[in-house]
Amino acid sequence: MSTKTSLSPVIILVQPQMGENIGATARIMSNFDLDDLRIVAPRDGWPNPKADETARNGKFIVDKARIFPSLQEAAADLNQLYAATARPRDMVKPAITPRETAKACQSHIANGSKCGFVFGPERSGLTNQDVAFCDVVVTVPVSETNASLNLGQAVAILSYEWFALQESGLQPKSELDYAQKASKSEISGFFEHLTNVLDKADYFKVPEKRERMLLNIQNMFLRADMTDQDVRTLRGILTILAGR
Amino acid sequence: MSTKTSLSPVIILVQPQMGENIGATARIMSNFDLDDLRIVAPRDGWPNPKADETARNGKFIVDKARIFPSLQEAAADLNQLYAATARPRDMVKPAITPRETAKACQSHIANGSKCGFVFGPERSGLTNQDVAFCDVVVTVPVSETNASLNLGQAVAILSYEWFALQESGLQPKSELDYAQKASKSEISGFFEHLTNVLDKADYFKVPEKRERMLLNIQNMFLRADMTDQDVRTLRGILTILAGR
Repeated sequence: MSTKTSLSPVIILVQPQMGENIGATARIMSNFDLDDLRIVAPRDGWPNPKADETARNGKFIVDKARIFPSLQEAAADLNQLYAATARPRDMVKPAITPRETAKACQSHIANGSKCGFVFGPERSGLTNQDVAFCDVVVTVPVSETNASLNLGQAVAILSYEWFALQESGLQPKSELDYAQKASKSEISGFFEHLTNVLDKADYFKVPEKRERMLLNIQNMFLRADMTDQDVRTLRGILTILAGR
Repeated sequence: MSTKTSLSPVIILVQPQMGENIGATARIMSNFDLDDLRIVAPRDGWPNPKADETARNGKFIVDKARIFPSLQEAAADLNQLYAATARPRDMVKPAITPRETAKACQSHIANGSKCGFVFGPERSGLTNQDVAFCDVVVTVPVSETNASLNLGQAVAILSYEWFALQESGLQPKSELDYAQKASKSEISGFFEHLTNVLDKADYFKVPEKRERMLLNIQNMFLRADMTDQDVRTLRGILTILAGR
């Protein structure tokens, strides 16, 4: 079970392409009192002079940003991930607005969970795999004729909604009472375990369908909002079944 | 009295310095179905290749943007102006949030008024004179330690609130029933008339205090939400008093 170490959501940029957008992200984070920036495999390496230059008063956030090889590792200590994506996805996962995200995130944090807002690369957005690893899809309402948001502005809107909610002094509603959730590293370990067990059991008869089936299975489990106890229980079941 | 020709707010950039921010403004406008961009005296002239480049799908908005020498001229056909500024101003003028701005603007538009969101230069923000010319101050809630918002991101947040309100399907509340307001060119004409009259009457005994006194007078009149009939009435009074 994770302890309450962060009172604000973490921002995770997955494979960002442009240093300017990393800088813009750090700058707007400092405008909204966020300071934990994590970057997965930045295209142009790290450090990035363009990021330093455009961050302005948010330079200290660039300086202490942490680099990870994968979303799984970047989010290992987090409990609840919100995937920012404009494109409709062929998977069953709740999709909410930035405003709803701020409220949900506040409730999770009040219950001791750690949350992350996850953004994909500029050109392509998050992969299906990365979206599947997240709990909820966040979609900024945009024009039907131009749904392509700049990365820095997408971060601005989600961060703004978070800050505006804190400023409004609204308390999380009592009916939104989330139980303490499993950490992402516990979830990752469970999915890995499950995939191994399914592969060994020759569960995926048609190789072309394997990936899609795995995503659907992951989504199903994620919708269950598992606690760490749930994960331990499931892994115990897997161990027993695989050993038969 | 202006006719209902625009259903969305106009974006006015006053003396923007960086082409990148003009492009970012056009891009986010197209994300949120805004298309009337007006630019007052851009620092680097016009057209601006950097603006073209960063506008992406919003390039058509850059292409049809109009250039003006002053805010007064850029806003001549508008009725209600919202001045985006983070810095507290030494003048009595209502200050509201972006969310309140979207609602107020929607009500004005429903009553046939045309609205504009006004943004100042990156480094210095709007001058006191420009703020005084606007009806309402909009302040994005930001961190106490870093209140300096990037221009493109400030435009993003106001435009987002406008679009989110349209998407929510909320109608303007009936109690917010604004009368048809005077146009900005009528207001400008009145202030010019008034200033001339006061100067000729040697009203400003202390030259150093003239500007501040004029701003306070303008603010007082703007808070009155004058109709075009009000302006004609006041100018009639001025003409009569000045002719004594």
